[in-house]
Amino acid sequence: MRYTQMLTKSQKSSKTFDSVNATLLIRGGFVDQLMSGVYTFLPLGWRVLKKIEDIVREEMDKIGEEVFMPAIAPKEVWETTGRFSTVDVLFKVVPANETSKNKNGAEYVLNCTHEELITPLAKKFATSYKDLPKAVYQIQSKFRNEARAKSGIMRGREFRMKDLYSFHTSVDDLKMYYEKAKAAYFTTFKRLGLEKDTVLAAASGGDFTEDFSHEFQTRCEAGEDTIFFVQSTKEAFNKEIAPSRSVSFDQDKEQKALEKVFGENIIGVAELCEFMGISAENTTKTLIFDTEKGPIICSVRGDYEVNVLKLKKCAGVKQLVLASEETVKKVTSAEVGYAGIYNLPSDIPVFIDDSIADLVNFETGANETHYHMKNMNWGRDIQKPEKFYDIKEAKLGDMFPVTGEVYEVFKSAEVGNIFPLYTKFTDAVDYKFVDANGTLKQVYMGSYGIGTSRVMGVLVEKFHDEKGIIWPIQVAPYVVHLVSLGDTVEVKEMANKLYEELQHKNIEVLWDDRDTISAGEKFADADLIGCPIRATISTRSIEKGGVELKTRSGQDVEYVSAEIAIDTIQKMINLLRNALK
Amino acid sequence: MRYTQMLTKSQKSSKTFDSVNATLLIRGGFVDQLMSGVYTFLPLGWRVLKKIEDIVREEMDKIGEEVFMPAIAPKEVWETTGRFSTVDVLFKVVPANETSKNKNGAEYVLNCTHEELITPLAKKFATSYKDLPKAVYQIQSKFRNEARAKSGIMRGREFRMKDLYSFHTSVDDLKMYYEKAKAAYFTTFKRLGLEKDTVLAAASGGDFTEDFSHEFQTRCEAGEDTIFFVQSTKEAFNKEIAPSRSVSFDQDKEQKALEKVFGENIIGVAELCEFMGISAENTTKTLIFDTEKGPIICSVRGDYEVNVLKLKKCAGVKQLVLASEETVKKVTSAEVGYAGIYNLPSDIPVFIDDSIADLVNFETGANETHYHMKNMNWGRDIQKPEKFYDIKEAKLGDMFPVTGEVYEVFKSAEVGNIFPLYTKFTDAVDYKFVDANGTLKQVYMGSYGIGTSRVMGVLVEKFHDEKGIIWPIQVAPYVVHLVSLGDTVEVKEMANKLYEELQHKNIEVLWDDRDTISAGEKFADADLIGCPIRATISTRSIEKGGVELKTRSGQDVEYVSAEIAIDTIQKMINLLRNALK
Repeated sequence: MRYTQMLTKSQKSSKTFDSVNATLLIRGGFVDQLMSGVYTFLPLGWRVLKKIEDIVREEMDKIGEEVFMPAIAPKEVWETTGRFSTVDVLFKVVPANETSKNKNGAEYVLNCTHEELITPLAKKFATSYKDLPKAVYQIQSKFRNEARAKSGIMRGREFRMKDLYSFHTSVDDLKMYYEKAKAAYFTTFKRLGLEKDTVLAAASGGDFTEDFSHEFQTRCEAGEDTIFFVQSTKEAFNKEIAPSRSVSFDQDKEQKALEKVFGENIIGVAELCEFMGISAENTTKTLIFDTEKGPIICSVRGDYEVNVLKLKKCAGVKQLVLASEETVKKVTSAEVGYAGIYNLPSDIPVFIDDSIADLVNFETGANETHYHMKNMNWGRDIQKPEKFYDIKEAKLGDMFPVTGEVYEVFKSAEVGNIFPLYTKFTDAVDYKFVDANGTLKQVYMGSYGIGTSRVMGVLVEKFHDEKGIIWPIQVAPYVVHLVSLGDTVEVKEMANKLYEELQHKNIEVLWDDRDTISAGEKFADADLIGCPIRATISTRSIEKGGVELKTRSGQDVEYVSAEIAIDTIQKMINLLRNALK
Repeated sequence: MRYTQMLTKSQKSSKTFDSVNATLLIRGGFVDQLMSGVYTFLPLGWRVLKKIEDIVREEMDKIGEEVFMPAIAPKEVWETTGRFSTVDVLFKVVPANETSKNKNGAEYVLNCTHEELITPLAKKFATSYKDLPKAVYQIQSKFRNEARAKSGIMRGREFRMKDLYSFHTSVDDLKMYYEKAKAAYFTTFKRLGLEKDTVLAAASGGDFTEDFSHEFQTRCEAGEDTIFFVQSTKEAFNKEIAPSRSVSFDQDKEQKALEKVFGENIIGVAELCEFMGISAENTTKTLIFDTEKGPIICSVRGDYEVNVLKLKKCAGVKQLVLASEETVKKVTSAEVGYAGIYNLPSDIPVFIDDSIADLVNFETGANETHYHMKNMNWGRDIQKPEKFYDIKEAKLGDMFPVTGEVYEVFKSAEVGNIFPLYTKFTDAVDYKFVDANGTLKQVYMGSYGIGTSRVMGVLVEKFHDEKGIIWPIQVAPYVVHLVSLGDTVEVKEMANKLYEELQHKNIEVLWDDRDTISAGEKFADADLIGCPIRATISTRSIEKGGVELKTRSGQDVEYVSAEIAIDTIQKMINLLRNALK
């Protein structure tokens, strides 16, 4: 492609957008922001995205069949699973104006995911044990009504996604396929150049299973997730479910006398610490929740937050909301703000986090309005419970309970996820199969996603420097960025010849053939656009032997004669490709 | 692909759908109807559609750059062009439920076409005469709120489309590119196997130009358009604008005495003919329209309808609606139903169709309630106008005025269209370019569409027989349909070997490897699915020499040894491919 024939031009503007990826992709002419969270993929950007999606497609073809489901769906299919009213990012489609409404007034769902469509579809075709397992996938645009779409193309109201769904006769078969999908995902991310920094992290499995789901998380400062990583075992956990133990700290071993302290309206850990002259590690935070089984009490060390997912699991409940003022008063016999683990009613379940287990002389609410207990000690002032729980939100410095190692904690972007859905959706549409004995049995299901446009954003976040993007060769818009400088006949002829030879050899080339642009500007554009190899032809390069070659990621330049330029470029390509293996 | 591993199975059901293409595609497992006008492309169907889209992409890459614009857009861009309230198939996107609404209550347009997005985008990048011309295209899903979606995948509420847009510094440059696009379209339809039956038909250019647009129309009984074709010149016209002249018919040359006939409540041609004992060709139909320039009168022969587009052009008006009862009374001095070209007020423009020019002893309304004129004659009873017009809806039997040939008339499906938009959209967004002298000038624009999913439907309509689909080889889901019959070791081994060899040679093969299915059923499925070559391996075929080969379109079978099966198949493929050239 000749630069002068491209629709887009790089932008000289120093304007920055909501993220590094948006800034570089917009400046380089890869994408255009139509509105918050909605982007046009321009010729350069669409080339990159297609390459990413082709890699994903090749790997998915090995474990499933490609289909293409509609973006719009009847509301009924979403009502069947109960998600029409509960999915908080769901859009619907209605007539835009009166004449449109008069033609057809129906409303449709704009799908943000396709369980509602694929499950009835599989039910139509795969009804016998002989038909199962089956797996199908698609790559297409998805729509989510995000409150704030930020992070450039890493989170959009409209974005591209590969979603795969599998159906099985048993949990074992689902689990077997689940491992196959995991392996296919690792291969995919390896081919995309993200292997080194991508971990498989356990995450919440949702309401319908005790199991975890799994997220492929790529280290990335611009990511929205926080990963707790165990070096020795390579296990990783999303912060939302990371098991944790607090590191022990120096404490006075000698028990002090229990005090009941009057502290009118002293509420909240920070205020309490100041008031009492103690540190947060010596306080406790006690909360009352309402559940479908009645109220429960829980307590974590003052410097922690309660992790609702963990607490739900420990308490064996599905619903969990902070209790009303009225309930708090009933449970603690005090106004809100003075709850503690001292003097609690015996008929209400209590869950105390293990961060409190080893505390000496700690504070807790007195369960009496305006009063706090100071210098509490296990055994002396309160009976040590049979069991402590892990119900805290993990934080930097915490240990992985199994090995006792301090976690490595990093920000990350979720580039893929795999999800054992079990029978949540198959039950909803009453999808069963006939086994070898003629008996109707439940069908088990999994779903598996990769955000292809997000992957493109993550690649930019990972592979750039202050000058621009440094595309991995396998997804680069073009392999060679040919720069011709000056308009002497000699330069033009040599550039034209190399351009044609590269095309003849099927080496993708972008030729900056603009006449009136300076060398500095052309090099800056080449660095911004980030093709792996730059080939420069100028009077100077000809003096030095012919063509100047340089990789985007390296510093060294090399001069080769026009005759061997193609061969040298081919060698550079091979080196860059091999580096991926 | 092994048949047992595919998600879908052919359906034995004899249920028919709204069209041949829907019936065969659903039975064969190519598509699934989610709701009226909305289909899932199943593995087989998605393979076909991808091949169609790849052919389109290859040809479009020669005349433009590929991009990918969003499906959702801010309402404002559609309000800028004034089309938000006028496009009668437009959808909008709103939050589906309360929680979604609380996150973000904004409304978006769901694009049915992309002029509103591409024009501001081109304005961002192509602002100098040096940047123009530019052409970009995309292939993606589009959404239209059709009143009734019918004709299977030939008309959908959600469908696949390639849309290309071009921008130019002059009308001449636009016209030059327009011809280039035409040529690229003919190549595309040729490659798709539709060349023979596809014509370039002139159609309405819309409100903003006197010029025609052009439609690529494929002969097809299931199509929604009617084409008037001129054999000698190969010109074709959409019925909506086809110029026409009526064929002369035998008339009594002798003028009879003019009569004023009382016919109370005799309204409408059929009733009038019966009442007067004359044929429709001897009557006239006179209508009064309101326009932005005031009322006009028009008249066509009784067996014709008025063509509003033609009348608009003749009258030089943009708005044209049937006049109110009140206006009719004012103009004709009679109740509605008795308008004629007799005794008309002199201050209102009259447009008389040329089908009336040669009539002798014809009927017309008397412009007096309950009265009709019989045996009217030009010159004697009414002055012959200086000019007759062509304002009739063309019908079967009419002639092309230029050559005097009777049109060939056929039903057809619009598979593509090209449209000179001139400055309609560039003006709306004030998109101008700077010419070589630094002057701001108007940018001219064209748009060019191909309905890729509709093409798939048309291919089925064109290429099928009573047993199923007969795919042209270049879009067939698989090239070879391998059928193994019986479960002897010999058959299985030979089938497995051929299957692997075909894959090794990159010849796409679908192997019906089902065990418990009869030969009849397997052959019926192969005919239904319609792959170009069927290879059968059975005890019988082995007795006869090895593999039985047959094309889907032919009757003859051939037996070849396993050793030369691949070579023979390759020859059959070459023959089938050459037939396309």
